[in-house]
Amino acid sequence: MDAGSAEDRLIARYFKPLARHPGTFGFSDDAAAITPPAGHDLVPKTDGLIEGVHFFSDDPADAVARKALRVNLSDLAAKGAAPLGFLLAIALPKGFSEQWLAAFARGLGEDADGYGCPLLGGDTDSTPGPISISIAAFGTLPTGTMVRRAGAKAGDHVLVTGTIGDAALGLRVRKSEGSAWQLSAAMREHLVSRLQLPQPRNALAEAVRTHASAAMDISDGLMADAAKLCRASDVSIVIEAERVPLSAAARQAVDADAAAIQSILTGGEDYEILCTVPDGKLADFVRAAAAASVSLTEIGRVVPGPAVPHIRDRAGLELTFARPGYSHF
Amino acid sequence: MDAGSAEDRLIARYFKPLARHPGTFGFSDDAAAITPPAGHDLVPKTDGLIEGVHFFSDDPADAVARKALRVNLSDLAAKGAAPLGFLLAIALPKGFSEQWLAAFARGLGEDADGYGCPLLGGDTDSTPGPISISIAAFGTLPTGTMVRRAGAKAGDHVLVTGTIGDAALGLRVRKSEGSAWQLSAAMREHLVSRLQLPQPRNALAEAVRTHASAAMDISDGLMADAAKLCRASDVSIVIEAERVPLSAAARQAVDADAAAIQSILTGGEDYEILCTVPDGKLADFVRAAAAASVSLTEIGRVVPGPAVPHIRDRAGLELTFARPGYSHF
Repeated sequence: MDAGSAEDRLIARYFKPLARHPGTFGFSDDAAAITPPAGHDLVPKTDGLIEGVHFFSDDPADAVARKALRVNLSDLAAKGAAPLGFLLAIALPKGFSEQWLAAFARGLGEDADGYGCPLLGGDTDSTPGPISISIAAFGTLPTGTMVRRAGAKAGDHVLVTGTIGDAALGLRVRKSEGSAWQLSAAMREHLVSRLQLPQPRNALAEAVRTHASAAMDISDGLMADAAKLCRASDVSIVIEAERVPLSAAARQAVDADAAAIQSILTGGEDYEILCTVPDGKLADFVRAAAAASVSLTEIGRVVPGPAVPHIRDRAGLELTFARPGYSHF
Repeated sequence: MDAGSAEDRLIARYFKPLARHPGTFGFSDDAAAITPPAGHDLVPKTDGLIEGVHFFSDDPADAVARKALRVNLSDLAAKGAAPLGFLLAIALPKGFSEQWLAAFARGLGEDADGYGCPLLGGDTDSTPGPISISIAAFGTLPTGTMVRRAGAKAGDHVLVTGTIGDAALGLRVRKSEGSAWQLSAAMREHLVSRLQLPQPRNALAEAVRTHASAAMDISDGLMADAAKLCRASDVSIVIEAERVPLSAAARQAVDADAAAIQSILTGGEDYEILCTVPDGKLADFVRAAAAASVSLTEIGRVVPGPAVPHIRDRAGLELTFARPGYSHF
């Protein structure tokens, strides 16, 4: 990573300014050396974005970068970990635009600063395929305290942060679907912004670690991810559909087209935290969320029974879905 | 990462058997939790392989997996770090062969075991492009002891492990070039195997950490990487061309076609260690390499002067190259 080849020049111009952690040696070496906090575990996580699969070719480059980092930060938050740093592997088609890369690096640097998660190294390749971005992020937390999917107990409260379904509806808006929803331009914009720019709840990580019996981030859809939590914890969950927090735009979509609830509950890319909290810790958790300015909603309870989630409408009738969540294959 | 979607099924079938570190929870959670050794730094590194760029579509899948891991292990070795584990992000075209993936996972698992570098998590995506593999590996070493590119001093000995140029010649053989080299079938096979299956020198990592003043792995070509070491250390290096260790196959290629030396010295993908060792530590370093069964050759000396490497033939004439190393752009 230094001045020599065209590849070295790209790195020097766009990524070296992001080498703000002293352990990166200004990207002048083969690898960084980072001292993790003593008595802490390392929580490593990787998630990738591919042009045409996870983002549109005309999405703003700075938003693509932020999303690539944020989807990983969201996992760290849900596990109760504080960000330590990340690695970036990016593959660019020959003839890519330097303007795109400049905006990408700017967005990445701003989020790295904003979330306190510095770039620790990377790899830049050419590809005959689409733009492809892999980020590997590392969090830390006191040894043995990672919040698992396992750990939910019957009686625990089930909570989610933020609002659910915006990104899934935003994806349909981006594909010029959802005309039945009669959304205002501002509502459409809100939904698309939630798709392009997740808001990982890292501000809540410590509270999750302190209070949650189980937690995960919602990336594949609320119902699919609730199913994973049920399986890991060997419990059932009952969710009350009308308590699932919706943005004004999502509410409008459902009011105009009841079928929109399917996308909301199963579409994924929420990057909100789904967690379970024992009765005795609920009040403290709610207070911590308020202090962190993270909105939090109780949507149901953990119950004994077969390890699957249920979701019921106001009349107590169970909602079922043809396709519970996103799968790449 | 559990049984649900087709994606979950792939992960369960091919990657879950690789979840051998207890901190991975059998890939049943969103992330692993790993306790790094106390008093150690973390050395994170990422390097990717893209089908059609870094490997051929008909390369054996298990070798592709091994190479993806080994190119990262090689960096850890050169920095003096012991492997802690790695993350895998893999993007597969729709309609990929499960047989390919099975062989990939088998090769990956064998190397993870062989090098003591367990899989800690991953991400599996579909892509409209070529197969794309990103590995992020983490090593550890006692705090503050990472071997840098900086640190070489005038008078230090310059050494390399193994043999140089085999992979670069192997790439040309793989492209049906090099007929002028008059290689036997066994020689061609040797060169291609060195391209497909690097031999990272992790067995030498501790000795490098103890004895080398500067080190890096050779991935972009001996001359390009020597130039990086010179820049970082602000020294010059004089390499004696006839001392650069060649395999029998590479020797035959040069004997038959003197121009082959250009590929050997600048082609890259050697994944050998280039290091500098002070006079007083040389004997111990040589002994440690012998004990680790890693072949080691002194190829030159560090000298004062402008921060570029020089390479001289037997007559003392300097060799120059049109293109000192590999660049993706």
